[in-house]
Formats: sequence, C-alpha cells, structure tokens
Amino acid sequence: MKTKTDERATAEKFPRHIAAQSEDFNQWYTDVVTKGDLADYSPIKGCMVIKPYGYALWENIQRVLDGMIKETGHQNAYFPLFIPESFLKKEKEHVEGFSPELAVVTIAGGKELEEPLVVRPTSETIIYSMFAKWVHSYRDLPLLINQWANVVRWEKRTRLFLRTTEFLWQEGHTAHTTFDEAQGETLKMLGIYKKFAEEFLALPVIDGQKSESEKFAGAYATYSLEAMMKDNKALQSATSHNLGQNFAKAFGITFLDRDNLEQHVWQTSWGLSTRIIGAIIMTHGDERGLIMPPRIAPLQVVIVPIFSDEQKNVAILDAAQEIARDLAARDISAQIDDRTQETPGFKFNEWELKGVPMRIEIGARDMAQHAVTLVRRDTGKKESVAHNKVVAEVVALLQDIQRNLFTAAKERMEQHIFPVQSFAELKESMAEPKGFAVGGWCGSAVCEAAMKEKTGATIRNIPFHHYGTFTHCVGCGKKAAHTAIFAKAY
Amino acid sequence: MKTKTDERATAEKFPRHIAAQSEDFNQWYTDVVTKGDLADYSPIKGCMVIKPYGYALWENIQRVLDGMIKETGHQNAYFPLFIPESFLKKEKEHVEGFSPELAVVTIAGGKELEEPLVVRPTSETIIYSMFAKWVHSYRDLPLLINQWANVVRWEKRTRLFLRTTEFLWQEGHTAHTTFDEAQGETLKMLGIYKKFAEEFLALPVIDGQKSESEKFAGAYATYSLEAMMKDNKALQSATSHNLGQNFAKAFGITFLDRDNLEQHVWQTSWGLSTRIIGAIIMTHGDERGLIMPPRIAPLQVVIVPIFSDEQKNVAILDAAQEIARDLAARDISAQIDDRTQETPGFKFNEWELKGVPMRIEIGARDMAQHAVTLVRRDTGKKESVAHNKVVAEVVALLQDIQRNLFTAAKERMEQHIFPVQSFAELKESMAEPKGFAVGGWCGSAVCEAAMKEKTGATIRNIPFHHYGTFTHCVGCGKKAAHTAIFAKAY
Repeated sequence: MKTKTDERATAEKFPRHIAAQSEDFNQWYTDVVTKGDLADYSPIKGCMVIKPYGYALWENIQRVLDGMIKETGHQNAYFPLFIPESFLKKEKEHVEGFSPELAVVTIAGGKELEEPLVVRPTSETIIYSMFAKWVHSYRDLPLLINQWANVVRWEKRTRLFLRTTEFLWQEGHTAHTTFDEAQGETLKMLGIYKKFAEEFLALPVIDGQKSESEKFAGAYATYSLEAMMKDNKALQSATSHNLGQNFAKAFGITFLDRDNLEQHVWQTSWGLSTRIIGAIIMTHGDERGLIMPPRIAPLQVVIVPIFSDEQKNVAILDAAQEIARDLAARDISAQIDDRTQETPGFKFNEWELKGVPMRIEIGARDMAQHAVTLVRRDTGKKESVAHNKVVAEVVALLQDIQRNLFTAAKERMEQHIFPVQSFAELKESMAEPKGFAVGGWCGSAVCEAAMKEKTGATIRNIPFHHYGTFTHCVGCGKKAAHTAIFAKAY
Repeated sequence: MKTKTDERATAEKFPRHIAAQSEDFNQWYTDVVTKGDLADYSPIKGCMVIKPYGYALWENIQRVLDGMIKETGHQNAYFPLFIPESFLKKEKEHVEGFSPELAVVTIAGGKELEEPLVVRPTSETIIYSMFAKWVHSYRDLPLLINQWANVVRWEKRTRLFLRTTEFLWQEGHTAHTTFDEAQGETLKMLGIYKKFAEEFLALPVIDGQKSESEKFAGAYATYSLEAMMKDNKALQSATSHNLGQNFAKAFGITFLDRDNLEQHVWQTSWGLSTRIIGAIIMTHGDERGLIMPPRIAPLQVVIVPIFSDEQKNVAILDAAQEIARDLAARDISAQIDDRTQETPGFKFNEWELKGVPMRIEIGARDMAQHAVTLVRRDTGKKESVAHNKVVAEVVALLQDIQRNLFTAAKERMEQHIFPVQSFAELKESMAEPKGFAVGGWCGSAVCEAAMKEKTGATIRNIPFHHYGTFTHCVGCGKKAAHTAIFAKAY
C-alpha cells in the first residue's frame, strides 16, 4: 500500500512537460521560460512579452536595485526614446558599434522625417546632449543620473530574456571633475551590481575588465560581471564603463573648475537588463524547472490544501488562510492554491516548475496533528511543523534556501574554473565547454580573435581575483601580459 | 530697523523669475515646469526630458497608483514597443483615430522592413493579439492586466507634460465573460482614478461619460475625469473605456463558456499618464510657483539653516540633522539645504518655486528658544515650534496642507461651474472662459461640432453628478437628451 507521502510525490499527468536539462539544455531553457509563465513569444520578430509572473520578478529586481542606486546618491530621470541619427555619429566608435543594430523611424505624423530618428539602443548620446546644457561649473558635479527604460537592438538571433530586440534595463550616466573620480564611480557601481547579484539573486560572479575588443563602443574601459550557467557557458550579467572624456568631447560637456578654467567632464555609464533573468534561470534551475531565490521570488510560499471531505476542507482552508495572513504580516508573499479542478500532484508540479521556493501542504492528517508539511524547492526536503511554529520555520528555511542556492552555485562555479597552459588544452576544454578556462594572454587583439575563431570561446574578462600565475599566452605562447577568463558565452 | 523675520522674508535677487500667473498663465506654466526643475525641452521635437525632481513626482504617482491597481486584482506585464501596421488596421475606428499620429519604423538592422512597425500609440492591438493566444475558457477570465510604458503620438502642437510626442503612462487591459462585468470594471477603474486624484493629488474631478465624438477610437463607451485648471480650462485627467466586443472580434479573442459554447470576450482599457502632472501644477500652483500636495510631493520638508557665526552654525546643523532623522523615522522626506554660497532668501524662493509643502527654518534666535520656525507653502503662515514638538506638528501640518489644497481647489471649481440656458450664454462665457458651463445637449454630433466650432469649447463629459435639469439643447434649442459639461480644454 502506498503511503500518503508517496501519493503526494507521484506526479499526476502533467501537461507542462519540460525537456531534460541534462539532455537538451537549450530546449529546457525555452520550456521553463514559456511553461513557467515568465515570458511568451510576440508577433514581432525578436520581441518577447513578459508575462505577469516574469514581470513580478523584474519588479522585485527593480525595487531592490533601484534602492541601492539611490542609496549611493543617484537620481532617476527620463530621456526621449528617439535619438537623431546625427547624435549617434558624434562619437565615432559608438556609431560603428551600434549602427548595424538600429531600428529607425523615417515616417512620423504621416510625413517623411527630415532627419531619421533612431530608437535608442542605449542613451549616452541623447543624455549627454542634455548634460552639455545642464553642466556649467564644478558645483554642478558630480552629476549622478539613472534611467529605467526600454531599448532596442535589432539582433539577428534572439532568445527569450538573453537576447531580445527590445529589452528593459537601467542605465546609469554620470559626469565627474576628474578621471580618478570617474574610475572610482565605475568600480563602485560594478561593486553594487556584484553585491546585488550575490546577495539577492544568489549568483556568484567574476568581476574584471573587458579586453579592448570586447569593451563598450566609445568607452575608455569596460568592466563586467560574468556568471557561469549550468551548461558551463558564461553570461555577462552587468557592465560598467569608464567613458573617459570621449563623449564629453563629442558633446561639448564642459565645466569651469575651481580655478575658473574650462575642462571637459569625465564620465561613466553602467547597466543591468532583463537579461539577468536568464542568469537566474540557468544558474539555479533543475530538472523540475525554475528555482527562484527567496529574496527576489515573485511568490515565496505556495500553500496547497489537500482536500478530503467537505467538512474537513473548511477547517483546512481556514488554517491555510491563517498561515497566509501570518506570513503576510512578516512580509512573506504567500498564495493559497485552492483550485478544485486540479489534483495536489498537478499543483506540486506546477509550482515546482515555477520555482516557488517553499510549499506548505495542509491535509486532514496534518490537521489532526495540528501541523503542516513544509517542502523546500531546492532540496525537496520535507518536514512536519506544528501550526504555531510555521512562520518562524518558514522564515528560517527561506534564509537557508537563499544561502544554499548561492553556496551551491559558487561551489559549482569554483569546480568548473580550471587553469590552461596551452592552446591545445584551451581548445579541448571548450569543445563541450567544461567551464571557464584561466590562462595567460599576450594582450594582442589579433591573437584574441584567432583564439575565438578556433575555439568558439571569448575572453570574458581579465579578472580582479588572482587565479594563479600564467607566464605565457595560451594563444601564441608569447609572454603573457594578462591573466584572462576564457569561455563560451551567451 | 528691520526685524529678523523681515530680513528672511525679503526676497534676494532671485535668478529664476517666473511670469505672473494672473497675467500670462501659459508662460507661468512653462516657467514653473522648467525653472522648477520638473522637465526640460529635448533636442527631439515634442519630446521632453523629465528631470529628477519631476521624475520623483512621477515615481510617487506610480507607487501609489500601482498599489491601487494591484489591490484590485490586476497584474503588471510588459508587451512590445512595436506593433505591425496590419494589427492597427484590424479595428477600423481604431486605425482611423490613431493613423495621423503614428511614428513608423521602416528600417531595422540596416534593411528595409517588409512590414513597417508602428511605435505604440496605445497597446490594445498588440496586447489583444496575445489575449487571443492566452484565453481559451471562462476559467481564464477575467484577465486583468496592466502595463507601465512609454507611448508615442506624433502631435503637431506640444506642451511640456500636457501633450508630448512621447509620454509615460499605465494602460490597463482586461477581458471578461459578460458586458455587465466589463462595464463594472470600466466604472470601477474610473472610481480608482477619482479616489487617487482626490485623495493623493488633491484634485477635484468631474466623472462622466464622453460623447460619441470624443470617445476612444474603437471603444463602445468612454468615461473620463475632468479637472479644472486655474485658468478655467479643463484637463482630461484619466479615461476608462468599455471596449465592448469590438477588439475581441477583430482579434478573435474567444472562450468556451460554462455551456461549452464559444463566445467573444468583453473588454476594457483605461489609462493615466504623465499629463496628470500638468493638472497638479495648474490646479495648485500660485504666483510663487508650484505647490506639491504632501502625499505625493517628491520632497515634503526642506530644512533651511540660517547661518550666523561659525560656532553657532555647528549647533544649528546638528539640530537640523536631528530633525531630518526624526522626520525620516516617520517616513517624511526631508532635505537640509546647507549650501553656503546662497542666501536664505534665495533658498526660500527656490524651494517655494519647487512647491515643497513645508519649510523649517533654524537660526540662532530659534536655537536660543529651543525652537524652529515652520512655514507652510500653501498659506505662507509661520509658527514657532519647540524642538520636541516639531515632528508631531509637521505631521499635522502636512495633513492640513493636503486637506486645504483639496478644499480650496474644490471650492474654486464649484464656484466656476455655472448653468447655461442659451447658446449666447455659452458663447459669452467661453470667450475668456469663466469656468465649466453645464447645459442641455440634444445628443447630435453635428450640433456638438457646430458648438465647438463657434465657441472653442467642447463637451467634456456627460457628468454622473446631477447639476440641475436642462430641458433644451444649448446648441440648437431642441429637446435635450443629456446634461453636458462644456469647457475649453487642454
């Protein structure tokens, strides 16, 4: 005879099959995004629809990160969606980098426009045309602005969240009196992103500097966070750019310094986008579906009443509602899944697919024992907890799940970072990528391009962390100028 | 000899002159928007830049209204910026209404697009193409979605906040099983907007139904809130549409009802935009500048230390900081203006222009009395309050200012609503508009158009409130079918 626990564990015929993560990672990704109700394909090529469950995740990301951006003295503002084509052309590298990806408005109000308008792929040029108007004196600096916005880059190959024609992001834009202050801001914001990724998204990341070839079009230097996905590929999770005076000179952003001399400002920009949702999915998800880190989860707890006879069901629902209220009072989001047309097994599968960190089951047997059954999404571990201890235990378990997700991802990443001393080693390790390779690099863009061509892997960044001493370039064998992280990347 | 109070009250040479509201209302409006740091002109025709102070106001609006939208069961989602031209054409009236105002992307990724993409002027068509995919059964209904987004309408004449080519808004989109349910939703959301406008923005509004000519392109019926500006013109502050089955039929949004019969859904949409900021400005502002309602103010309290000698200044700043901390603990936003290069008089003028509801002055004389001086922005009234009573008094005064702004605006509106019995009366009252005219209307669109042509005033709505009995049409003298509100409008 089956025990009750066995019955609950048995998956009912579940309509939302997902591909096996271990067999077809790409299909698994698409399945958990679409069947997990995060996003859907739209009729516009490369544009997605972010569904309520996915958008609630983005709102949580926005709320937390926005708080961190404001705490560090930045103010939000909003600049136009459209940029005159001529603005983009003012910074030579910038326009070269972005022009292949532009969407261009040529007709408006029934007439052909004299000057076409580009839909912003990023807002440096339009924002800095305003900075030139606003900045006069050193007293106006630093100018610390952030914008939450949609941007458009016409990508050839798109994937939900990872690379979409339109995406949502924040872009910070600042102006300073000195190079050092701009460099400090660039690294400070990279640090904010790292803290956010690690503490809220449970994403371990490698911070470092991009190579010249991979830096932002128009920047003096770009820094990035690189996260490792479960298929061992890298996902660039945020970037922070020291723009030097490139844009300041192109847009004439000058100020009078304390000696009344006219100077160009020093600038930074930095961004994090809906792409980060792809990193959450591919870092934590498993064969059962998504796993949401509790601190950012759209829903932290689902309560599933296990219905039996009508009389008992009233008491079961009463208990569920009381627990939901108690959790809400502790700022824990909880939802009761009281659908009668679905079986408990169906519901378990569905909420596991959606990655809700904790499930509370309440059935007649639980009620008889004045208890409920708690189930963790990360480990699947169950425990019976007395009614009066539910809230305290949920609080503790959510904290433990958050910690556990980060620890597991960090251990996994550390186990998949390995030194390479030769090109043969690099190539072999990147065929079916075994993780991130660390090795020497001579610093030549030609050598970098050749390695990319032959292995499919790119230099992700030159990490701040010391991963060992590498005396020779993995690509050409010459003297190494840097230690680099190599990986295939999204 | 001047008293200290006199000295404080004396406006220093103030660089941000604004036009007199009583003499040139339009210039006054532009001045308070730009010199009050709410917004700035951008290099793109008709597009504005929302500056940090203005954006903080919009964020407060978003936070409160978003909470009210979610409390009533709606979920946020995000849909593409672009709409295929063919989608707009599916609903005949809709495309006729919007086609003159469209911005069209014809080139993307360096190539001419096969089908041009319209930048959304509103999202019914793109959202309902997704609803058609998502709705199958009555169990999927009601579908209650909201989106915060930017939209673009190519306007010929633009004005900051009131009419800009790009603007920010929320647009709610719902689908229901019956007409009655959709009608209930339409009016419920109009009610939410009214509650929000009155309780948070201190804006009295007239709710009612739009005439056929003025309804949303593609709607079955449109309802609006109309607010009265200080120049006696109307500003449509929010709209809510019962869409009937027009879009459901155009996009094939059907469901199987409880009897397993296929039915088209019944729909609503409703929106509130950055335009509402114009209503706040023109309802509350005065000759000194903006007045922000405390419940929505970007900054509720400014603390201005009145510096004297250095030793006293330390104690003054300490006291200012302590008060700021105490206010923050009560969730009241406060900022200390400790600039040393500006005089107190300059600061008073500047913060009054920006409409900060309360000012706290702390000078040496205040310190000697263990007191501070509180100044209300709405009445200019000053009072001296002991240090240990500051927080309680500020809380009480902010509530009183909120109440007072609403009461003053409501009284003003009521005094400027007057009955008209003849066309001559209507015309005369609208030449230099004396307010809102209430009168009979036969219901004919031809008569409505003739009145508009001859008076410059439009039917704002057919109000829910009973303003009296009007038996004959103001326009043609025939039997009145409705009582209408006539006004010149933004």
